[in-house]
Amino acid sequence: MRVDVLTLFPEMFDGVFSASILGKARDKGIVSLQAVNFRQYAGNKHGQVDDTPYGGGGGMVLKPDPIFAAVEALLDESERPILEAADGVVHQEKSEGNADLKAPRIILMCPQGETFTQKKAEELAREDHLIFICGHYEGYDERIREHLVTDELSIGDYVLTGGELPAMTVIDSVTRLLPGVLGNETSAITDSFSTGLLEYPHYTRPAEFRGWKVPDVLLSGHHVNIDAWRRQEALRRTLERRPDLLEKAELTGKERAWIEEHCKPDCSENKR
Amino acid sequence: MRVDVLTLFPEMFDGVFSASILGKARDKGIVSLQAVNFRQYAGNKHGQVDDTPYGGGGGMVLKPDPIFAAVEALLDESERPILEAADGVVHQEKSEGNADLKAPRIILMCPQGETFTQKKAEELAREDHLIFICGHYEGYDERIREHLVTDELSIGDYVLTGGELPAMTVIDSVTRLLPGVLGNETSAITDSFSTGLLEYPHYTRPAEFRGWKVPDVLLSGHHVNIDAWRRQEALRRTLERRPDLLEKAELTGKERAWIEEHCKPDCSENKR
Repeated sequence: MRVDVLTLFPEMFDGVFSASILGKARDKGIVSLQAVNFRQYAGNKHGQVDDTPYGGGGGMVLKPDPIFAAVEALLDESERPILEAADGVVHQEKSEGNADLKAPRIILMCPQGETFTQKKAEELAREDHLIFICGHYEGYDERIREHLVTDELSIGDYVLTGGELPAMTVIDSVTRLLPGVLGNETSAITDSFSTGLLEYPHYTRPAEFRGWKVPDVLLSGHHVNIDAWRRQEALRRTLERRPDLLEKAELTGKERAWIEEHCKPDCSENKR
Repeated sequence: MRVDVLTLFPEMFDGVFSASILGKARDKGIVSLQAVNFRQYAGNKHGQVDDTPYGGGGGMVLKPDPIFAAVEALLDESERPILEAADGVVHQEKSEGNADLKAPRIILMCPQGETFTQKKAEELAREDHLIFICGHYEGYDERIREHLVTDELSIGDYVLTGGELPAMTVIDSVTRLLPGVLGNETSAITDSFSTGLLEYPHYTRPAEFRGWKVPDVLLSGHHVNIDAWRRQEALRRTLERRPDLLEKAELTGKERAWIEEHCKPDCSENKR
């Protein structure tokens, strides 16, 4: 997969793109990660990429021309093979003209976007090329939204200084789903959200820490009891913290009955 | 404000803590940002910070001892003034023993946590000291949750490779609210979410770009009409994209009536 990010702060991405799982996926040639400063496409002497809004009011608005020019330069360039790993070897050279590559998704990170979810991560993980556009406290000229982007995404209902951290978040979430990225020990299968419930509590050594002991059942070696305890605790935690998740979880009749019994009167109102 | 992050990948934070608004807030001495590798508190020769889970199953679990030791070292250290800016000047020396400082919030980043929102950002912005704990694909020993942390936060319903990007996201969102961080031109007042509606469309020069024109009203100079158009477009966009936000928005009777009229039959079901 090829991932390009258009940003005014490419240096923000260095640490995140090089470390840990993203860094390894990049070294293996599974993903190419590139942060591009779109100021180089400003097309004017002063590198101006934003301007005051028509109709007045505070704040600045990102001009359409530099963003369109930057995306188009990336599209031209993507005709050439780019999956070059750190060792200089091209791992996935596509056929001439890249006829078998899907058209890139052009993703605008913005508070007005669709809320990003695990389902969206799975959808994006099936693509060949993602281009992210990150504004930085400015607004976007509406014509970018209307005539250039394929997706608008928000990572949650909070305000940030720019789209850079949201783009990194989406890229991390998508990259870890690509085949070969996660080893068995960190398999995507045992994740939170995969059962539809929050995870059960985990314990490791020491068996007693400052007087706080690991629950006896986990030391019993009795796997049927352990599985039952874990399922019950996952259910309890989900009911306490995220009852909204229970609607979509796959539960047995007995489990549904347990929830009804332990659901406080205001439980359904707590659902978001 | 002092912010410490416990992580196994401190180098991930370099770019984000140095660039743009966070970097400037740090240079001005408004916030101190520090990423600490808690492996140095492992207390064993091999620097082991995780172990297999009691009761079996895949994955690794972060041991309680290194995390407790790392947090306690930070608490000891916070008796000393730490708000030292890049120029080496201590900007906010607190009184002896820091008696007027609030106890730190110790925040675990995890998918099971409370969903982070702008309201939570505002709450955390009133604190003196935040300590973030970032796991990295491993689980946390439950005793960390039960006996050490004050808050558990999740930034959204998607799976990431670690708590680092979520911690950066929360830190960015909180820091920009601190007095003196944002200039007037990027005031927190005109943000998305502040009116309870999504933002209206923005336009800047050129007035015509590739045949796509800026709406006439914005060029009219008629401010009453411009304000009315913007309010109407904010309402329309919110109805189309995030009808769930309308419940809490402050709307006039006329606006409520407009929404009723334009709400499709399945509109209330679309509310999350």
